[in-house]
Amino acid sequence: MRFVTFRRSGAQGLAAAEPGGEFHGLMATAPGYPGALDDLVAGGPEALASAGRALLAGPAIDLAAVELLPPLTRPGKIICVGLNYADHSAESGFAVPSYPTIFARFASSLIGHGAPLLRPAVSDQLDFEGEFVAVIGRGGRHIAKDAALDHVVGYSLFNDGSVRDFQMKAPQWTVGKNFDGTGAFGPALVTADELPPGCRGLRIETRLNGQVVQSASTDDLIFDVATLVSTLSEAFTLSPGDIIVTGTPAGVGLARKPPLWMRPGDVCEVEVERLGVLRNPIEDEAGRQRAAA
Amino acid sequence: MRFVTFRRSGAQGLAAAEPGGEFHGLMATAPGYPGALDDLVAGGPEALASAGRALLAGPAIDLAAVELLPPLTRPGKIICVGLNYADHSAESGFAVPSYPTIFARFASSLIGHGAPLLRPAVSDQLDFEGEFVAVIGRGGRHIAKDAALDHVVGYSLFNDGSVRDFQMKAPQWTVGKNFDGTGAFGPALVTADELPPGCRGLRIETRLNGQVVQSASTDDLIFDVATLVSTLSEAFTLSPGDIIVTGTPAGVGLARKPPLWMRPGDVCEVEVERLGVLRNPIEDEAGRQRAAA
Repeated sequence: MRFVTFRRSGAQGLAAAEPGGEFHGLMATAPGYPGALDDLVAGGPEALASAGRALLAGPAIDLAAVELLPPLTRPGKIICVGLNYADHSAESGFAVPSYPTIFARFASSLIGHGAPLLRPAVSDQLDFEGEFVAVIGRGGRHIAKDAALDHVVGYSLFNDGSVRDFQMKAPQWTVGKNFDGTGAFGPALVTADELPPGCRGLRIETRLNGQVVQSASTDDLIFDVATLVSTLSEAFTLSPGDIIVTGTPAGVGLARKPPLWMRPGDVCEVEVERLGVLRNPIEDEAGRQRAAA
Repeated sequence: MRFVTFRRSGAQGLAAAEPGGEFHGLMATAPGYPGALDDLVAGGPEALASAGRALLAGPAIDLAAVELLPPLTRPGKIICVGLNYADHSAESGFAVPSYPTIFARFASSLIGHGAPLLRPAVSDQLDFEGEFVAVIGRGGRHIAKDAALDHVVGYSLFNDGSVRDFQMKAPQWTVGKNFDGTGAFGPALVTADELPPGCRGLRIETRLNGQVVQSASTDDLIFDVATLVSTLSEAFTLSPGDIIVTGTPAGVGLARKPPLWMRPGDVCEVEVERLGVLRNPIEDEAGRQRAAA
């Protein structure tokens, strides 16, 4: 099953589709609405299957006619992994890491499929990073690696838009990874049963204006999903609705000569086989401000 | 006015005190309860003054007889500043920074005054970092520095307990800053009107088992509160209930020869003049696990 969270006429809804099927769904105010995906994931596969049945009994939803939101609009932790593909770690000037490099995003940076990635007023160095996301369904601490995938309820896509000059202004990357409107998440949460364990063996590709700029296999992850869940839970409790943004392969704009930045009017797509395509146009924050003034 | 969030018999309450006065308060279920502090801060000084009057009309609360929680139990962003005192930046091997070094905490790491700071099962390198916190009341983006303090509704204390070996396992510090039970926050939120603008000119001190291990003036901040609010809001929207943990002065255990780690049975205190004392005992996570088994 795949789920999308959407907004229509200012109200939120949730829709579901079987593999290859059409989306059907319900507005939050409709009888039988099963609740927001943020809350449903805590119920695990059974709750999602039940919610899916309720939604499929609702009217068809034309995804092109609604505003897609991030599948989870208020994730608990947004745990991002850096340097998790050997080729990207090398192009970034780092040795192959022996421990995951983790930074955090704030929910204020998130946008959904189709919403504009914003080039900030204060920088023109907006870079793409295509990634896939693991969504925690069952929480825990000190989770063994061989049980770790039982804690992942589904997967999605992410464009970890990075403002490179701000990312590098200090030893920690946080500011450059948290500009408003730079973290694209979606379009759908795809339940784990539709995918290979740990989302392994899938082609991951980023395209800028249709040109392939990143292409790798999810098998190339240095720390795979099970390892990330197990390793992170040594330090802190994972909770339902936490998301792990697993890292990007080589090809980012920063590492190119000359660098390749995303510019207003561009369109960036992140695709992982069987997870779908996350597409976002790029807009200029400064232009938006002028338009609003 | 100062506010404490507490738990008694499994239920949450809020109490307030005038300067030098006793705490009076209400349980969340009581008539007249003004709401959680997380929500009240969005109303700014007026909402807090009104809430304070309602709470002061309630019964006296003996702080020693209740469990203190972090003043905000679900902050939006927990924005932590590293290397923000020149002497600490030097002892950590960094040059004086020209831009704030920002990392994030997840709310899962927070504890209140009196709760144990947990030495992890997987590390004995638990270090102290005494800090003060600015709490955002009014949100905004692109906030001018000369208006920045209008967005800060109050201040509190923080012990940014750091698991140093995990902090240094990768280029980003996130994991070592996010172990469960390592971020002590409290005891009270003190409204900005009780303090010098930007909390400047106050003595900040950390004591381990009564011995002073950090001592500085909040005037020694490289990036003061107004600068932090203004600079951060260039990148992202600040929202009511976001907190900025402003950084620690020199004297941390990591920089000592030999290093000084907090151990089970120790007591760590962070004090800032007029903000109070945040006191936490240190316990062993492994011991807790054995006791629970």
